Amino acid sequence: MPGLRNQIFLGTFVSSKTRRELQYLHDAAVCVGIDGKIVKVDKGCASADLIDGRWLAKLGWEKSEVDIHVAQPGQFFFPGFVDSHVHASQYPNVGIFGKSTLLDWLETYTFPLESSLKDLAKARQVYTACIRRTLLNGTTTAAYYATIDVEATNLLADLCLSLGQRAFVGRVCMDNPDICPDYYRDESAQASLDRTLQAIEHVRRIDPNFDLVSPILTPRFAPSCAPESMRGLAKIHRETDLPIQTHVSENKGEIELVAKMFPESSSYTAVYDDHGLLTPKTILAHAVHISEEEAKLIAKRGSKISHCPCSNSALTSGTARVRWMWDRDITVGLGTDMGAGYSPSILEAARQAALVSRHLAMGIDDADPEHERSKLTIEEALYLATRGGAAVVGLENRIGAFEEGMEWDAQLIGLGVVSEAGISSEAEGQGGDGGNVDLFGWETWEEKIAKWVYNGDDRNTKKVWVKGRLVHSRR
Amino acid sequence: MPGLRNQIFLGTFVSSKTRRELQYLHDAAVCVGIDGKIVKVDKGCASADLIDGRWLAKLGWEKSEVDIHVAQPGQFFFPGFVDSHVHASQYPNVGIFGKSTLLDWLETYTFPLESSLKDLAKARQVYTACIRRTLLNGTTTAAYYATIDVEATNLLADLCLSLGQRAFVGRVCMDNPDICPDYYRDESAQASLDRTLQAIEHVRRIDPNFDLVSPILTPRFAPSCAPESMRGLAKIHRETDLPIQTHVSENKGEIELVAKMFPESSSYTAVYDDHGLLTPKTILAHAVHISEEEAKLIAKRGSKISHCPCSNSALTSGTARVRWMWDRDITVGLGTDMGAGYSPSILEAARQAALVSRHLAMGIDDADPEHERSKLTIEEALYLATRGGAAVVGLENRIGAFEEGMEWDAQLIGLGVVSEAGISSEAEGQGGDGGNVDLFGWETWEEKIAKWVYNGDDRNTKKVWVKGRLVHSRR
Repeated sequence: MPGLRNQIFLGTFVSSKTRRELQYLHDAAVCVGIDGKIVKVDKGCASADLIDGRWLAKLGWEKSEVDIHVAQPGQFFFPGFVDSHVHASQYPNVGIFGKSTLLDWLETYTFPLESSLKDLAKARQVYTACIRRTLLNGTTTAAYYATIDVEATNLLADLCLSLGQRAFVGRVCMDNPDICPDYYRDESAQASLDRTLQAIEHVRRIDPNFDLVSPILTPRFAPSCAPESMRGLAKIHRETDLPIQTHVSENKGEIELVAKMFPESSSYTAVYDDHGLLTPKTILAHAVHISEEEAKLIAKRGSKISHCPCSNSALTSGTARVRWMWDRDITVGLGTDMGAGYSPSILEAARQAALVSRHLAMGIDDADPEHERSKLTIEEALYLATRGGAAVVGLENRIGAFEEGMEWDAQLIGLGVVSEAGISSEAEGQGGDGGNVDLFGWETWEEKIAKWVYNGDDRNTKKVWVKGRLVHSRR
Repeated sequence: MPGLRNQIFLGTFVSSKTRRELQYLHDAAVCVGIDGKIVKVDKGCASADLIDGRWLAKLGWEKSEVDIHVAQPGQFFFPGFVDSHVHASQYPNVGIFGKSTLLDWLETYTFPLESSLKDLAKARQVYTACIRRTLLNGTTTAAYYATIDVEATNLLADLCLSLGQRAFVGRVCMDNPDICPDYYRDESAQASLDRTLQAIEHVRRIDPNFDLVSPILTPRFAPSCAPESMRGLAKIHRETDLPIQTHVSENKGEIELVAKMFPESSSYTAVYDDHGLLTPKTILAHAVHISEEEAKLIAKRGSKISHCPCSNSALTSGTARVRWMWDRDITVGLGTDMGAGYSPSILEAARQAALVSRHLAMGIDDADPEHERSKLTIEEALYLATRGGAAVVGLENRIGAFEEGMEWDAQLIGLGVVSEAGISSEAEGQGGDGGNVDLFGWETWEEKIAKWVYNGDDRNTKKVWVKGRLVHSRR
């Protein structure tokens, strides 16, 4: 990244150690090189004063070539969020799903909007707004669906690169005339594959090693794709090792449709497997109603699941079973699934994942141990939002935590405090608006984190970095 | 209210016409007298220029004695929210319920905090923060539980009056030593009643006609109250006509406890009826698991229900059935139920009411018409937040809509807009932060409202008035 300097971050660092446990590093230092990689994590550094010449010498850094960022007391660094399923093209539709469910929602709200983004000025407006909005909500990595349009999809990739968001950008493949409207579909399987290759080629030009932006193969969902286009995408996957994203088992009507359209496949999941698309690099969104056999198949293939609780509740799709998936060795992350999901925030998705897991528990007899087990904790919800999501998009060795060798995708979190007079304000005179989180001063760190998860919003995300680059800073 | 002048509000006014329908008045004027009452609603007033002498003369107002407030294009006035169930004393605990359910949550989190508020400095801090936080989230009326402490309860009433929030303030009655801890309970039924009278007396002194603040009789819940204290409260109710608030049928363990403690009553609801507490002025919080017979009894007595979706999900209490209650002619409003409910916002409660109703639908077969019917619309969720809540607290003739003779409890809402370049900003140069709502300019009014409900927060609540008095204004 041109112009980037070595950086040292000082303060409290909170991240997922395991699913069950958060790690709190206080008075710590994380040193980030000019390539955005974490070169050292040290616990013995209470303030900038400790960064003396001797300590820097161990890193081989001169003091003059280092920028030092100190978190204020009460603030903490947290890994950036990963949104493992989001339709950038549907961003303007958030919240306006009405009483619809999946299939009528696609026809009424989705296809007309997506189609309109072949107007590149409109696409620029929508994609810029979506990237900025998700960045300031702490999303450092997003797996995006664009539209069928190559130029607009390429524009989304350009914008991610210039605004600095790590992204997987997928041109949407949909060529089945029985399902896709005439005004919005690839005219043939071959056209669908050709356009996909054009979009891949574009990303190769702008980010040759896919350091920040990567293409992703994106069969919309089985009903929208002819068998030959799915097989063609599988062939591209085998040749390029590019990741794949699609939808599975979101809604009962959709499942019936798939069963009718693919009678030779034993399940919705099997449709993808039968066409070569169920791989360790495949992200399956939703998976609300998958059977025991489908879960086994997904685990066997090493495919991943993006849990989208906001969308699943909004469209009355159902209640996905995260604990049940984990019990079956499936990797799970979170997706906003905008625009069916109403919120741009993965923090909101984490909150809803915890709440939805309680609705799942309500359906299980209290005496059954699964009742209690199915509830997700704060720690588990945050794991899904960071390390879980990182694993879903295949970046578990690069992002999601603060470990040496990983890249600095992070957010600085600050919470509001209440004065003795009962007046809420930003902690430590940072100015601005502390949002709806009010700390009274007696909270444990675990309670602070819980308050952030349940009442926090983008106002608490003070700064955001991707690969060492500062990409958002609240005024 | 000393110093208050006549006021004219100009712009777009949105409010519930019926449960199913919002009313949109564009280019309208609402005229509010010095007593905070709406004296005229007129549709023919596009701007301040129209307020000429002739028009004012009809009101009997001089131009010099009128303040004119003009909503900017895109902004709209909306009735203030009613929070019909909230524990002011538990405000510091929002979000930190962990994996607990009702009864252990009370012991672990609630009683220690409530007890500590006998320290009046701490009570002032907590209550001030709670009132301010709910006001800036648009709550113009709140039905508060305080603690058992008379002085601290009186302080809450004082603060509501000085900060200008319409409120029902309840000293909590709990005298059953089998359920209430020794460190936090009224020592006898008589002590509980005496203290209740002291708290009532205080409000009579500070607001003799209960214009803004009213006492409310508050037996915590049946298990915490001896039969004689419940009968004593019923007697006070009959003598004073003061409203009553309590909890009913929130959680299965609690229901079993009530059945064991009150074997002579036919149901949890019947316990209150048997002790004279089930009246047209009774607010029953939760009512998650009430039976058909209980619903009939509640409807017969004309008691009201406060639906608390955030809390019910957080504590895994269950899924209350709003449509089912409406079908049985029960009046329903919304409660945040802080601190079990994690959010200070009734807008969040409305959003969760809509989402939770979809979880209810998921449990009903798709072919059953009740599946579709049980889902609440945006319009219905907003009705619950305003007119529904107003009826729950017995103020349906005074607040909840913009009608002549009602009082001006209102909020000015402004949403963010996205520029052509994709940059989000506040509409019409109002400055500040438009929050997470992004309008692209092509939305219908219905879609704008949906976006507000699903992504809005206190940043969209620009100003708040109670009884004509401006009580909050965002910088």
